[in-house]
Amino acid sequence: MKVDRVKKILRDMEAEGLEQMIVTSSAAIFYLTGKWFEVGERMIALYLSTKNEPKLVVNELFPIVEDLGVEILWYKDTEDPILILSKFIDKEKSLGIDKNWQAHFLIRLMELGAGKAFVNGSPIIDKARAIKDSEEIELMKKASEINDRAMKEIWRSIGEVKTEKEMGALLGELYDKEGAEGYSFAPIIAYGANGADPHHEPDKSLLKKGEGVVIDIGCLYNHYCSDMTRTVFYGEPSSKAIEVYNIVKEANLKGEEAVKPGRRFCDVDNAARKHIEKAGYGKYFTHRTGHSIGIEVHDYGNVSAVNEDKLESGMIFSVEPGIYLSGDVGVRIEDLVLVTESGVEVLNKVTKEIVVL
Amino acid sequence: MKVDRVKKILRDMEAEGLEQMIVTSSAAIFYLTGKWFEVGERMIALYLSTKNEPKLVVNELFPIVEDLGVEILWYKDTEDPILILSKFIDKEKSLGIDKNWQAHFLIRLMELGAGKAFVNGSPIIDKARAIKDSEEIELMKKASEINDRAMKEIWRSIGEVKTEKEMGALLGELYDKEGAEGYSFAPIIAYGANGADPHHEPDKSLLKKGEGVVIDIGCLYNHYCSDMTRTVFYGEPSSKAIEVYNIVKEANLKGEEAVKPGRRFCDVDNAARKHIEKAGYGKYFTHRTGHSIGIEVHDYGNVSAVNEDKLESGMIFSVEPGIYLSGDVGVRIEDLVLVTESGVEVLNKVTKEIVVL
Repeated sequence: MKVDRVKKILRDMEAEGLEQMIVTSSAAIFYLTGKWFEVGERMIALYLSTKNEPKLVVNELFPIVEDLGVEILWYKDTEDPILILSKFIDKEKSLGIDKNWQAHFLIRLMELGAGKAFVNGSPIIDKARAIKDSEEIELMKKASEINDRAMKEIWRSIGEVKTEKEMGALLGELYDKEGAEGYSFAPIIAYGANGADPHHEPDKSLLKKGEGVVIDIGCLYNHYCSDMTRTVFYGEPSSKAIEVYNIVKEANLKGEEAVKPGRRFCDVDNAARKHIEKAGYGKYFTHRTGHSIGIEVHDYGNVSAVNEDKLESGMIFSVEPGIYLSGDVGVRIEDLVLVTESGVEVLNKVTKEIVVL
Repeated sequence: MKVDRVKKILRDMEAEGLEQMIVTSSAAIFYLTGKWFEVGERMIALYLSTKNEPKLVVNELFPIVEDLGVEILWYKDTEDPILILSKFIDKEKSLGIDKNWQAHFLIRLMELGAGKAFVNGSPIIDKARAIKDSEEIELMKKASEINDRAMKEIWRSIGEVKTEKEMGALLGELYDKEGAEGYSFAPIIAYGANGADPHHEPDKSLLKKGEGVVIDIGCLYNHYCSDMTRTVFYGEPSSKAIEVYNIVKEANLKGEEAVKPGRRFCDVDNAARKHIEKAGYGKYFTHRTGHSIGIEVHDYGNVSAVNEDKLESGMIFSVEPGIYLSGDVGVRIEDLVLVTESGVEVLNKVTKEIVVL
């Protein structure tokens, strides 16, 4: 168990008057135990209580060789794991439920009357996970270092030969060589006008001289995510593309400069967005400025106009403004940033000056 | 909407006394509407009622250009989709819930009192999906034809140069060329003793002369899955490997011969298992004989000793006995089979005679 993290969760549960909860998602169990269980059809639940010791209910098919520092209750495929779980739930008290638990487990728990009421317990864990501890910051930095090297390596392979899809496969090999566990999300490598679709999926398109390439990529390293975007050009870009590039670059820098403890997520969004709006491209910046990231590529917390939560030291999120001119050109520039005691540390070091390959 | 399928579900709901249910998983919504929605964090729900017309509640970010033949209620990211959904739920009646719905949506629905009681509605749909209709059978056959061609193509590339992982990547390219949408599951390509672990993940192992290769692969074609295993040898196998191979092949054939409407899943398991037990390898056949397959690679219904459900015409499942001698050799041979009016049709046509490359 990650003892300090569990202690914090129990303190936060006490503060919210929630005596017991079950944690069932891969990411949250990993955060609290340090072990990754690939949650599938089989039930797994970490029971947390402010009154009693934690317990882990897990199918005997999951091998656990290490000492997790938590009592484990094993069950067989022929047994009802919810019945086992229900036995140590205090039926007179509310029970926090993991937001993503499969409904049929919750329905079974309700049939057994295991809990006075059922509430979404995930916000407590999500909010704790938003502030990374030193171990997590190290892993996030390592994941971004790998991503920086992969980005520069990808640039060397850009040309008219490989399709977007093939470039994506090449990226997978690069991550593999670097000791990463794979993609943190399906990579976006978008040639020319494809880059004007912020969620373009790599296809069989080939690159032509003068086109831009939006490269939005990330890897997993020890279960922590990286995520970065650069837009580069293959041969001389049009003057329109250069204009758009420079506006997005400036918006990215302004967003990052706005990062400081005590400021709000919406202030970061506003700093980046205002610059694009002033340049007359506001309606072409069609998404929020960023998202928190950690064990999941989209952790709790958006860098958006409506999020007034304050930034705190230890938070890590993306700053990724973009301008998308449909059918023509798209530019997005994204870094991960860490909120420090005094301001910001940008985790990605790859140049943001315009690159013409 | 797939009108016949929806009608059947409504009849089955009536037979079970369930007046209303919501369907929320990608696979089940695809089965009933013919459209695939990649279900993520955003709520999507198909409401079915034996009294009223169906309704689909969906985020406006999901593009629907075709006429699905169902009333659509759009919501924005700033709205509460569960509140919208709750408005046409009959609060005096029980509500069927999709087994995999995220718990936080169900908790919100309960807060709103939208339903007298909540039950797992998925078995009704899962049981219907177990019997494939003619359209589904065609797609399943096509997916298996692609898989047959890919298997033979993979054999041509087996040698001492490519790691297991690289062979897996090659398979992805083959599926791509064939017009499949990708893997139906992470492929298992296991060299030598790796094949003795039924769930081995491809790694950087290289193949050596005389070793076997367990190749357990499947693709997605129009959202339907294929799944097949062959074990081949690179150079002359040991006499032990040949012995094991022939036992597994015979067990596969006996399992497939046992497939007939009216027989039970456990009879198929028993036919394959008995042969392996008689040969003295019973304890090395460590898993069930197979699983149903369709839109999901593991559809409802196991070919196992404890499943006494009867086989019906239109069912498709795997028959995949194996023997695993830890640290030495593993052999698994798997086909998909279709239960026909009179018996069985084996969907995979790749030879099961011993292949030495």
